[in-house]
Amino acid sequence: MAEPNALVASIPETVPFVGPEQLMREHGLRECLRLGANESPFGASPLAVAAMRDELARIWCYGDPQSHELREALARTHGVAMESLLVGSGIDDLMGLIVRAFTAADDAVVTTLGTYPTLEYHVVGYGSRAIAAPYRPDGRVDLDALLDLARKHEAKLLYLANPDNPSGTFATKDDVCRLIDALPAATLLMLDEAYADFIAPHDVGIDLDDRVIRLRTFSKGYGMAGARIGYAMTTPRHISALQKIRLQYGVNRIAQVGALAALRDTAFLQSVIDETARGRSDYEALASRLGIGTIPSSTNFMLFDCGTEERAHRVLAALLRRGVWIRKPGAPPLNRYIRATVGTKAMRVAFADALEAVFVEVAA
Amino acid sequence: MAEPNALVASIPETVPFVGPEQLMREHGLRECLRLGANESPFGASPLAVAAMRDELARIWCYGDPQSHELREALARTHGVAMESLLVGSGIDDLMGLIVRAFTAADDAVVTTLGTYPTLEYHVVGYGSRAIAAPYRPDGRVDLDALLDLARKHEAKLLYLANPDNPSGTFATKDDVCRLIDALPAATLLMLDEAYADFIAPHDVGIDLDDRVIRLRTFSKGYGMAGARIGYAMTTPRHISALQKIRLQYGVNRIAQVGALAALRDTAFLQSVIDETARGRSDYEALASRLGIGTIPSSTNFMLFDCGTEERAHRVLAALLRRGVWIRKPGAPPLNRYIRATVGTKAMRVAFADALEAVFVEVAA
Repeated sequence: MAEPNALVASIPETVPFVGPEQLMREHGLRECLRLGANESPFGASPLAVAAMRDELARIWCYGDPQSHELREALARTHGVAMESLLVGSGIDDLMGLIVRAFTAADDAVVTTLGTYPTLEYHVVGYGSRAIAAPYRPDGRVDLDALLDLARKHEAKLLYLANPDNPSGTFATKDDVCRLIDALPAATLLMLDEAYADFIAPHDVGIDLDDRVIRLRTFSKGYGMAGARIGYAMTTPRHISALQKIRLQYGVNRIAQVGALAALRDTAFLQSVIDETARGRSDYEALASRLGIGTIPSSTNFMLFDCGTEERAHRVLAALLRRGVWIRKPGAPPLNRYIRATVGTKAMRVAFADALEAVFVEVAA
Repeated sequence: MAEPNALVASIPETVPFVGPEQLMREHGLRECLRLGANESPFGASPLAVAAMRDELARIWCYGDPQSHELREALARTHGVAMESLLVGSGIDDLMGLIVRAFTAADDAVVTTLGTYPTLEYHVVGYGSRAIAAPYRPDGRVDLDALLDLARKHEAKLLYLANPDNPSGTFATKDDVCRLIDALPAATLLMLDEAYADFIAPHDVGIDLDDRVIRLRTFSKGYGMAGARIGYAMTTPRHISALQKIRLQYGVNRIAQVGALAALRDTAFLQSVIDETARGRSDYEALASRLGIGTIPSSTNFMLFDCGTEERAHRVLAALLRRGVWIRKPGAPPLNRYIRATVGTKAMRVAFADALEAVFVEVAA
């Protein structure tokens, strides 16, 4: 009988992220307050929505496999060559290509224990080995520990989400540059900048060279998670390697058009950044009222300290019963926190009401 | 320095399909008559377009990674279990997953010489080996030759596009069932049914078992090529293998909603099928006027015999100079043909005018 190969047969049947739709089906919820996936409820730029709406008349056409116009615009935005850019259907897609291209069986990939799990999903899926350093006690990524592991295991890839998810912490440009300069010669830094829209551009503008691939997305600040579009920035040499194996016609045409329009609407992005900052302040105030700690966040989400992992699980379950969907980090030292996305003002008020009620309930 | 692995380093930098946008940029064309990719210029169902337009308000949300509602609807349409269905971002995506899951290094994959090239792109990309049987002289896929190759090379996969692209020919359900019954025990049939919307459903309803994976798309009859959405049908056992490695959040949310609405609009699909049949008759009449042969097509495209490959190339180039973009098969015996998609009535008239003028020009 036809059988999958030994690698695929060996992979356990797990799902890296259960989606809210499945939880809603399981719990019989028809609606939920959707604050679990760090989506941006401020939505996409109205200009992007209008461009996408108009493009529906051409949904019968494949998108441009080169994403030429979008790459032209991105090249201008970042001051890099078009040949340094590759557009994919989100960072998950690009991350898979990088693991596939730059590791072989049993190669080491260094990451942080409990950071964005899709990296490890790809590492398992392609048969390399994930080796993880824990977060520091303050919730920051331990750059020194990552570097030590990369040296010790002759890692092919070092994964750094910056700002990090789920901690929300940010390593400065200087720190990242020092990390890059200290990398072993054969190690490539996979720099996941999914949340970098919330950081001032001059604080994330790492120069491109053969030691780093930067990953960006339209899913977070640009509010287009459902569109599945992101891009990689690195040297033309590394882009060429990814070109050889990428899905040539993988990106939705409407997403291409929307991303191009979104990129031009800098005023809208700024309004999202500003409102997200106000939302973080609201969440800090909420934590103060509850008398609990947070971890200072550079992103559109925040961790709330529930004291123990068991209590964090109870809070999560109690919130879901009230129709509030959030998530929590899975590994220590962050597993006693819950993670909530910054919503609109109305969503933040509803979340605060629910969390305050749940804390009373869970304490009882 | 960080380097791609040996497999990726060994892959030549080729592009399986140059897109029309790139050709237009190279030739300074601002518009073209787009008949080269077998897209459906009849567009998507108006109900699907309306559903997609409405869903843009939720573009900030990731799609349901399970595509639950769409799979429910597809299960009803095809009379199969939901667990027999996997939704991906087009057949290209699913094809890549199948090659990745069901072959290992140097395994043989049997295909037809000159058929849909993305299959071979994936085979090269994952390090298996494509072994191809030529088309029969009449342009039909040589099922016996494919079977012989599968036996001889102990193939893990046998690829059959049915209806076939680029020939447009169709193997009957009986022929395909006979092929399946004769497959070597370890060979899986990858049945690419991209163009099956143009065939009566009872003529393509191969029963699902562990020997076959059927692939379908919303890119052709449903007119949603730009949306990138398709699905695989096989046993739950094989679906589980693909689940382990697929991009969980790879499908665009708007595409999911559009596909669901498109599936319900059976009247629109029928109108496309009917108009496509009229278009094929128009193309047959055009070929008669030109005094050239065609290959009877079961799809939304047709091959026109240019006599020699050199002449076919000249016709293609002359058409492009007139702003008409079509493609041609690359391998004998079909490489003396050009392939044109069935367009709207207006597009067919414009194509006929251009082709008649070009035939005069090329003959001169």
